[in-house]
Amino acid sequence: MSAPLPVSPLAPAAFPDTGPIKGVEFATANSGLKYKGRDDVMLARLTAGTRIAGVFTTSATRSASVLDCQNKITQSSDAGAAILVNAGNANAFTGIAGQKSVDALSKDLAAQLDIPTSRIFTSSTGVIGEPLDHGKIIETFPTLLSALSQDSLEAAAQAIRTTDTFAKGAYTRIETPSGPITIAGIAKGSGMIEPHMATMLAYIFTDADIEQDVLQHYLSACTEKTFNAITVDSDTSTSDTVLLAATGASGVSIALGDPDFGAGLHGVMQDLAHQIVRDGEGASKFVRVTVTGAANDKEAKTHAKAIANSPLVKTAIAGADPNWGRIVMAIGKSGAAADRDALKIWFGDILVADQGWVCETYTETLGASYMKDNDEIAITVDVGIGKAEATVWTCDLTHQYISINADYRS
Amino acid sequence: MSAPLPVSPLAPAAFPDTGPIKGVEFATANSGLKYKGRDDVMLARLTAGTRIAGVFTTSATRSASVLDCQNKITQSSDAGAAILVNAGNANAFTGIAGQKSVDALSKDLAAQLDIPTSRIFTSSTGVIGEPLDHGKIIETFPTLLSALSQDSLEAAAQAIRTTDTFAKGAYTRIETPSGPITIAGIAKGSGMIEPHMATMLAYIFTDADIEQDVLQHYLSACTEKTFNAITVDSDTSTSDTVLLAATGASGVSIALGDPDFGAGLHGVMQDLAHQIVRDGEGASKFVRVTVTGAANDKEAKTHAKAIANSPLVKTAIAGADPNWGRIVMAIGKSGAAADRDALKIWFGDILVADQGWVCETYTETLGASYMKDNDEIAITVDVGIGKAEATVWTCDLTHQYISINADYRS
Repeated sequence: MSAPLPVSPLAPAAFPDTGPIKGVEFATANSGLKYKGRDDVMLARLTAGTRIAGVFTTSATRSASVLDCQNKITQSSDAGAAILVNAGNANAFTGIAGQKSVDALSKDLAAQLDIPTSRIFTSSTGVIGEPLDHGKIIETFPTLLSALSQDSLEAAAQAIRTTDTFAKGAYTRIETPSGPITIAGIAKGSGMIEPHMATMLAYIFTDADIEQDVLQHYLSACTEKTFNAITVDSDTSTSDTVLLAATGASGVSIALGDPDFGAGLHGVMQDLAHQIVRDGEGASKFVRVTVTGAANDKEAKTHAKAIANSPLVKTAIAGADPNWGRIVMAIGKSGAAADRDALKIWFGDILVADQGWVCETYTETLGASYMKDNDEIAITVDVGIGKAEATVWTCDLTHQYISINADYRS
Repeated sequence: MSAPLPVSPLAPAAFPDTGPIKGVEFATANSGLKYKGRDDVMLARLTAGTRIAGVFTTSATRSASVLDCQNKITQSSDAGAAILVNAGNANAFTGIAGQKSVDALSKDLAAQLDIPTSRIFTSSTGVIGEPLDHGKIIETFPTLLSALSQDSLEAAAQAIRTTDTFAKGAYTRIETPSGPITIAGIAKGSGMIEPHMATMLAYIFTDADIEQDVLQHYLSACTEKTFNAITVDSDTSTSDTVLLAATGASGVSIALGDPDFGAGLHGVMQDLAHQIVRDGEGASKFVRVTVTGAANDKEAKTHAKAIANSPLVKTAIAGADPNWGRIVMAIGKSGAAADRDALKIWFGDILVADQGWVCETYTETLGASYMKDNDEIAITVDVGIGKAEATVWTCDLTHQYISINADYRS
């Protein structure tokens, strides 16, 4: 893109004021690989003893760095660790050269940080299929190492963006009987968003002390209803990666089943997931789709995704058109069970349809006002079969999505 | 839409000169239901002894007329028959009133034609969820009955359009040892197109003499690789209906397994299916996606549909961007098996990628020229697993699609 995109109208007012996370330092630099006038490489250094969990794309064409992270995540170590991310080139579908780039980056950075290469986790995001000139990234290492600071989380979130129009961060602080802990995270993502097991890229840090298997359990459990419940355009990235690092530097231990930690992590992950939708390419409306009355959790989500991914539903919302007939269509096509003659549909609190037809109290004026007056649209459908429910978040489909994606590489 | 849409740049030069189909007459009229200045009701009268086969949407929210046709298609009769179609209102998700409208239309028309109500097949296409004022359609019956003619196939194709920018017809004539037979069909469809078992609406007529079960076999067999192999926007209609009527008026009998009839019917159905894609809302490119080397037929089609439905692939084609990385992404997300490091991708005859990476002989200039210079784009991918293949047709995703669908009802 020649001109920078305007900031999404759905962006939060400001990046959260997270403060430092004990045991984590950040640095950013410009590699000159693609972007001018902004940093495009991010390094997070993690203190010795940090445990790391991860969830990754299930794509059959996933990138070299995803495969490398999946391999390393299972190896335990008490050494320090690092997360290295570049934006502008995904190093995906780059054949054998892809893994060579990952190996070169890992080996050089590991030597400079004096830690094993198995503790270097890399991610790359951007154009698919172009070789990664990793030498340019290695050239930034001296700059990165001299700039490491506990206060650079926002700069880190800025550096990992591609078509993102704002930096995405989320934060919570939990008071435990043993003292306070912090959970903070950053994410990037705007297009190619229908994560399966993860989202584009997200990095979450806590200073709690948590065993690796417990950490993985928390991360996987929270992913299904956060990153795995959003969609911008039904496309799934080859680079989806979420890493959760626990430094232990707070001295506070967290065991399996801690409700406060689980809720805090869920909140941070949901906040980041929502910010990705709020920055969905071309988005002008933030849309929550809730399906109730489904046969089971999976079918509830299938229905909700069918609505959230329907180009006809998404363009209607873009046009502030309360075209609930398209919601009926999406439920019908999903393949999951629905009772046509028991369907109920709401826009916000407005009951639109009941018992398989438009509700007597509903008017087009009511629906049109709701669509026009709100930046945040809530669609609820009861499919009349059982008791399961699911919520998915998406955005509308606008001219700006076409503009961004018809000439992304030019 | 206030102003009529411009005719698709991918439209055929002219409606085919089919000539009459023995045993079939057509008439059209304006009901005043939605459209001004054009006919929006179509009647096809079929001679006594006509056999009718059908395939229908699998949508769980399918319309009253679809359910009614599905019920009637199984009842055999030697009486004459009629197909009645209105455009502008889909009579879908209209509760109990929906079936009442179908019954009223069927009863009145059956009386006027002196045939059983079970021989009246109705279809409705247009906005979902609004009650159908069937009285206005009944008022057109005298006009329709007085206008019936063997020569009105093109007018019939015109009358069933909604957002279609051109009338769709196809035709073939087969010389058999017993004499010539004709197969001719019309179709409508432009958006909400990813048929499952059928497409929006298509009506195919032949003067061959064919038993009902044999006719159904021919229709079902041809549907999978024609109407079920196209997609405009991944959305599936609540009204999808294909009817195939054999009047027998040629006196030529066709048995099961007749290769000429099978090929002729396949040709007519493929022609109509392609015309629907060529009139896909906002389409500027006609795209053929062929996947080879898949584990089985189903997985080949899953891959091909994943490419054909990817908003990122479709917007890239709209921008004449040879962004083959997005094809890799689509293959990766489809859920079907693929060997990342054996993938081959062609644009037309240009080998783009081989062995999991961009091909040495490929240049961006080659790819960009191919995308820019051709209205018809052929994408072929070998996924490197087995020997099955599938072809799917689609169009690109342009600004015009957003414009059409952000204010369809205004």
